[in-house]
Amino acid sequence: MTHFVLLSGGLDSTTLLQWVRGHHPEEPIEAVTLLYGQKHAVELEAAWRVARHYGVTHQTLSLPPISGSALTDADRDIPRGRDLDELEGVAPTYVPARNLFFIAAVASLADARGPGVIWLGVHHDDYSGYPDCRPGFIAAADQAVTMGTQHQLRVRAPFVDWSKADILRWGLEHQVAYELTHSCYQGTRPACGECDTCQARLRAFAEAGATDPLSYAATVE
Amino acid sequence: MTHFVLLSGGLDSTTLLQWVRGHHPEEPIEAVTLLYGQKHAVELEAAWRVARHYGVTHQTLSLPPISGSALTDADRDIPRGRDLDELEGVAPTYVPARNLFFIAAVASLADARGPGVIWLGVHHDDYSGYPDCRPGFIAAADQAVTMGTQHQLRVRAPFVDWSKADILRWGLEHQVAYELTHSCYQGTRPACGECDTCQARLRAFAEAGATDPLSYAATVE
Repeated sequence: MTHFVLLSGGLDSTTLLQWVRGHHPEEPIEAVTLLYGQKHAVELEAAWRVARHYGVTHQTLSLPPISGSALTDADRDIPRGRDLDELEGVAPTYVPARNLFFIAAVASLADARGPGVIWLGVHHDDYSGYPDCRPGFIAAADQAVTMGTQHQLRVRAPFVDWSKADILRWGLEHQVAYELTHSCYQGTRPACGECDTCQARLRAFAEAGATDPLSYAATVE
Repeated sequence: MTHFVLLSGGLDSTTLLQWVRGHHPEEPIEAVTLLYGQKHAVELEAAWRVARHYGVTHQTLSLPPISGSALTDADRDIPRGRDLDELEGVAPTYVPARNLFFIAAVASLADARGPGVIWLGVHHDDYSGYPDCRPGFIAAADQAVTMGTQHQLRVRAPFVDWSKADILRWGLEHQVAYELTHSCYQGTRPACGECDTCQARLRAFAEAGATDPLSYAATVE
C-alpha cells in the first residue's frame, strides 16, 4: 500500500505528511505537489524542502491552468486585510474543482502502480468558503475513486473536522518542521501577513500560544 | 446551463454529442477532447471534424500523460486479434482513473463559468473491462462533482446501460455523421480492424445490419 500525500508545502499538508508517516511507518509515502497556474508557486520550493526533510519521494504534476480564482487569474487581486470572521459564501480564492482535479491526477498515477491511499490536508476552517473541503465531498470523492479505479484506491482527510489551530497543536506536539513551510497566497518572501491564509496561519499560532517561525512583511491588526 | 460533452471523435461520443444537442436544443454545448499521452491521438482530428460538423465549440485539454496502459505505454503493444467474447478482468487498454481525470478537468473549467452538465459516452459493453465505465462509478462521480463545485455541476452518461449496438442503432436512425469519426486504438488510417475497439465497432455495425463508412486495413475473421 502506497500513501500519496498532497503536499502544498504549507502548514496543513506538512502536518499531514508527518501524521501519515507516524500512522504508517512501514509503508512507502510519496508527496505530490500540483501546479495549476497558482500565483504562489513559491510553495513548490517549500514542498520540495519539506519532502526532502521527511525523506519521502516528491513529484510535481503540471495540470492545465485552472482559471476562475483570485489565486490564478492575472486580473484578480489576492484579497488582503479582510476580517476572517466576516467572510461569507464561496471564497474568491476558491479554485474551481481543484481538489477533485488533484485527487483524480494522483489517482491516475497511483492506480498504475497498485493499491494506495490519497491523503488531503483539508480542515474545518475551510468548510464555508470551499465546497471541496467539506466532509461530504471527501466521502463522495472517496467513493468515486474507489469505484473508478482498478485497485480501489481510497481518499482520506483525517483533519477534515479539525480547525487549523487543532492541526497546529498536534504538529507542535510532534515537532513538525514548520520552519520549512510557506503559506502566503501572494507568494512573497517574506510572507505578506495580510492575505487570508497568512492571517489564518498567524491566528492559529496565536491560538496555540506559539510563535510562527515564518517571516512576515506585515501583520493585520 | 452549459453542456460539456467529452468527445473522443469515436462512435460513442459522437452519438452522444448529437443526443445532447437533440435533448437540449436551446442550450450551449461545448465539446472537450482530452490528451493524456494516448498513442491514437489521431482521434483529436476526428473530434475536431465532428465538433465543426455539429457547430459546437471545441477545446482540447492536455493532461499529464497517464501511464500504466497499453494505450499510452511505449513498451506495451495494443492488443490485436483478440476474441472479444473471451476477455476477462480489467482490460490492458484500461487507462488508470482516466474518466475521473477527464471529469475533474472539465469540472474545473466548467465551474469557473457557471451551472453545467458533464456528459460521457460510456456504455454497457465496457462494464467488465473498465471500472470507470460502470453505473456505480458514474453515480459516485456525479455526487463528488456536485458536492465539490461551486455551481453543483452534474455528471451524466445516458448510454451507461446501452450496448454499443444500441448506441449505433439510435445514431443510424438519427443520421449521426459516422463518416467523420475514427475509433482505432492503433491510431492508423485506415483503421487497423484488429484492435479491440475496431472489432467492437465492426461488430456493432454488423449487429445493426449497416455498413461502417470507415476504411479498414484488415478485419479479424
